[in-house]
Amino acid sequence: MSLHRILIQPGAVEAEAEDGTNLAEALFAAGRPISLYCRKRGVCGKCLVEIAAGDAGCPDPAESEVLARRGAPARTRLACRVAVSGPLTVVIPEASLIPSAFAAPGRVEGFRRSIAVDPPLRKYAVRPEPPSLQSPVSDLERLYAALPEERWEPSAAAIRRLAAAARPGISESVVTAVVHGRALLDVEPGDTSGLQLGLAVDLGTTTVAAELIDLESGRTLAAEISINAQGRFGADIVSRITAARAEPAAAAGLQAAAWETINAVLSRLLDRTSLPSSAVYETVLAGNTAMIHLALGLSVATLTEAPFQSLVSALPALSAGETGSAANPVGRVYFAPAIKSFVGGDISAGLTAMDIESGPGRILFIDLGTNGEIVLKNGGRLTCTSTAAGPAFEGMSLSCGMIAGPGAVQAAAARDGGLALSVVGGGSPIGLCGSGLIDVLAVALERGWMDESGVILAPGKTIKVAPSLALGQKDVREVQLAAAAVKTGMRMLLQEAGLATDDLDGVWIAGAFGSTLDIENAVRLGLIPAVGRDKIRFVGNTSLAGARVLLLSDPERARCEDLARRIRHISLASGGEFQDRFVESLTFTPWR
Amino acid sequence: MSLHRILIQPGAVEAEAEDGTNLAEALFAAGRPISLYCRKRGVCGKCLVEIAAGDAGCPDPAESEVLARRGAPARTRLACRVAVSGPLTVVIPEASLIPSAFAAPGRVEGFRRSIAVDPPLRKYAVRPEPPSLQSPVSDLERLYAALPEERWEPSAAAIRRLAAAARPGISESVVTAVVHGRALLDVEPGDTSGLQLGLAVDLGTTTVAAELIDLESGRTLAAEISINAQGRFGADIVSRITAARAEPAAAAGLQAAAWETINAVLSRLLDRTSLPSSAVYETVLAGNTAMIHLALGLSVATLTEAPFQSLVSALPALSAGETGSAANPVGRVYFAPAIKSFVGGDISAGLTAMDIESGPGRILFIDLGTNGEIVLKNGGRLTCTSTAAGPAFEGMSLSCGMIAGPGAVQAAAARDGGLALSVVGGGSPIGLCGSGLIDVLAVALERGWMDESGVILAPGKTIKVAPSLALGQKDVREVQLAAAAVKTGMRMLLQEAGLATDDLDGVWIAGAFGSTLDIENAVRLGLIPAVGRDKIRFVGNTSLAGARVLLLSDPERARCEDLARRIRHISLASGGEFQDRFVESLTFTPWR
Repeated sequence: MSLHRILIQPGAVEAEAEDGTNLAEALFAAGRPISLYCRKRGVCGKCLVEIAAGDAGCPDPAESEVLARRGAPARTRLACRVAVSGPLTVVIPEASLIPSAFAAPGRVEGFRRSIAVDPPLRKYAVRPEPPSLQSPVSDLERLYAALPEERWEPSAAAIRRLAAAARPGISESVVTAVVHGRALLDVEPGDTSGLQLGLAVDLGTTTVAAELIDLESGRTLAAEISINAQGRFGADIVSRITAARAEPAAAAGLQAAAWETINAVLSRLLDRTSLPSSAVYETVLAGNTAMIHLALGLSVATLTEAPFQSLVSALPALSAGETGSAANPVGRVYFAPAIKSFVGGDISAGLTAMDIESGPGRILFIDLGTNGEIVLKNGGRLTCTSTAAGPAFEGMSLSCGMIAGPGAVQAAAARDGGLALSVVGGGSPIGLCGSGLIDVLAVALERGWMDESGVILAPGKTIKVAPSLALGQKDVREVQLAAAAVKTGMRMLLQEAGLATDDLDGVWIAGAFGSTLDIENAVRLGLIPAVGRDKIRFVGNTSLAGARVLLLSDPERARCEDLARRIRHISLASGGEFQDRFVESLTFTPWR
Repeated sequence: MSLHRILIQPGAVEAEAEDGTNLAEALFAAGRPISLYCRKRGVCGKCLVEIAAGDAGCPDPAESEVLARRGAPARTRLACRVAVSGPLTVVIPEASLIPSAFAAPGRVEGFRRSIAVDPPLRKYAVRPEPPSLQSPVSDLERLYAALPEERWEPSAAAIRRLAAAARPGISESVVTAVVHGRALLDVEPGDTSGLQLGLAVDLGTTTVAAELIDLESGRTLAAEISINAQGRFGADIVSRITAARAEPAAAAGLQAAAWETINAVLSRLLDRTSLPSSAVYETVLAGNTAMIHLALGLSVATLTEAPFQSLVSALPALSAGETGSAANPVGRVYFAPAIKSFVGGDISAGLTAMDIESGPGRILFIDLGTNGEIVLKNGGRLTCTSTAAGPAFEGMSLSCGMIAGPGAVQAAAARDGGLALSVVGGGSPIGLCGSGLIDVLAVALERGWMDESGVILAPGKTIKVAPSLALGQKDVREVQLAAAAVKTGMRMLLQEAGLATDDLDGVWIAGAFGSTLDIENAVRLGLIPAVGRDKIRFVGNTSLAGARVLLLSDPERARCEDLARRIRHISLASGGEFQDRFVESLTFTPWR
């Protein structure tokens, strides 16, 4: 096969393509994701490119019509209709590119490990053998015969769609089978195998973050984040499950709000990539147990009373149509398995993202969301617990709190008599997000605006952050209680294992803080143990990173389910010791 | 354990029961099925019995109240509240008995083989371990731990129902898990394991017959038959699939009419047995391919054009709620697997009912419904074909035809210059059903009212059956074409196998005729081959008998699916030879 050089502008990217390669595919492969909205059928006109040099042949009448309709200048072609047959210089207009990934705030980013792409969701484009009078084999059986495996479990929907996909019966035509494990989910007319999308979702109490992922390449096409609309029923989990239990209307509202948020995020992802929702055949949701129960309208009654067991921990994958999802209704929704009660699928997903079990050593993993979940890995043994931290670290529930969006103070340092602020987006400060909050409190402690017991000593009993931005005594108490809860959890897990902080090889901090948390300040306030700086690692939103891994790998799914079953759970609320430890933990002092 | 004697009246049935046995259960076991409508909770008062002799103890206050409310005479008890502790004489009032099985017309009866009861649908009543603070295991996992196997696939419905079954969470209470294979279908509060019902249905073109079956004992509790309401869209299959293809409204109407009929039959079965529809967790439907496609709203487009393949042959089991069934919506509907095109699940079920493969020899199996399906078993080799017979043999499509209900002439013989008639129900003749039709034509041939080519020679070109009942030339032609189609099919299957009729060890006739068909007359008209009388066997509605076997036995289901895949199909329409044979077969003459 002869190779042809392609020079891609802007950016002067050089690529090679085999003779006959579809130009749109070649550009995609070269890291220039061209919009393929109409699945390379030359219909939508979204993949316009200019052939600045080289011979790309002539458009056929159908393409010419599309080009004319779009008012395309000379030497412009639909990339999806060009077969590369010689060296080319191609200029891609901005409008033809799929917007680049990770345009969302930095918090979506985080630790990402590379995994082999082996998703349960697959598409097979096949051309079944035609039937004959002597062997009038049914359409479905002829489809099976054309697939790489023989036995499938078809859904009722797939059978109905098969009739629609190829009328009057599969004969000469190509169809695409959408399978999930052994299940046949859907049958689409034509070859749609180039369009296999999945949605990875971190269903957080405060925010919902998601990535739209190409299941064939494993590439994240775009990421988005949004405030969880469930907030109107209460900022923290306890107030939401209490509301859901008290009133069926609240339970229904919480269920609807969860999907409203997820669907809004999905809709933005699809808008940005010019891709259709029908191509999203699998969604992985990672969230804590209560959030998942609420999203499915499942009873949270047992979570509000001792011994606080949940209705279910490992859920079956559901049809999207059975949930409130706006993705393809015959697609699947998989839930990262909960470990126990308040240690949910966000944690099992997080541990999977970090592949915590493969490495040696003793690791303390802390997820600082609205709940504070803590996992101790002591060699081959995993133990976990949870504490109700409240949403202070996520910037909520404070008089001046906000998530880490534009206008949020994400970092602060002492300057002269006051503070130097770093604001997301660079404008005027509007509020404080978690990392900014920690910095402000650390400076307040250092400067004597506040004492170790959390009493504000500054004039007016407020800590001034900006002309119209201040922390009050109630705000400080909120943070103090949240920090003490997490600290107590860490101490009790370590004690139960007979370990000191010095025995730890690593402290991994996941959650809302992102990369802007100042470790020195967090240590100073006692939020994380005073182990060496080199042992502390910020790993970002591991729940989302884990949802991505679970979406892309069937074997990782099995590992995660196994881990969720094995991990030991400790209930903090069960001993008087918790109260003692909690009171000890209330001061803003370093500890180890 | 000591045994106590129970004398049951009326009928002087003697039974024994272990000390402490529930009296209602003892009566049930003795073949006196007492109504257990409220699941033995002493609430409904439907199991009233008189204790004519012996000591049955005293009713507790709750039972006394029910007895008083029902105006029960002295010495009357609720059988479900009596623990047998000594010898008893019990008189059961008619109203307390579940109406005996097979009150439906005789056509529902037929060949029944005994099989080991091993259904995929089971109920387990369990008492899960309570959760603890240190191990807040989810409700679902604790339910699993109490079940005989560990791994289950719960349906979304089962999880929702689990929350309702035991609020606020399973603790001390008994719940009943309803499972199907590895699937957890439902969770019911309390012990409902005594109530495991299934519905076996023969979805015929003309009639729908069904049995309500106790899945624990394998007993048929009641049977019913009804005219298929799809008839308003056409009496035969071809007119129905043509209508469905031409008009979406007709397709929707045919789908609705199928379930309307099935549900009406189910409703009558439940009324007669005082049992709730929610207890019916599995339905098995046996029907021809087109009937099943129409009932599910699946496209029949491919069945109307060469090569006449169907959309699907082996369907997955569906949730009842996905179909139009009025049984428990989370229960399953299983479809007997189609063999190919017009040889459907009614035939695979029939062959399973007859266990055709286990015996030795050469068997010709003929199902004479609206379609004529023919199967030849030649040692270990099965071959099948189908012919469009039309509904004449089922008594439809004739000027004076009717199904074998009250008023139908079911048999006729020559008497003096006219006919002696046997009428279903004994009253005046209203019309002719299939078996009566054959008799009348045989007499007409013998008496010279009609010649072998089917021309009516009698005065007025009619064959008088009763004062207001006669067959015209068009009626005879209809029967003649149907008979010729079936005859041609039999001949071609035998020819293809290189067999003569003398080689056959048995000719099995299934279908609408029931036990009233006169074999001599059928042979005289050439409807069945003139093999020895001892080789011909009427096996009745084998489709329904097969649905029952498939409902009661998971292993038989697997065998049936395997058989349906293996059996060879011959298409009659594919050769010019068919036409020649068909014309030869048009005379009313015996053949072998």
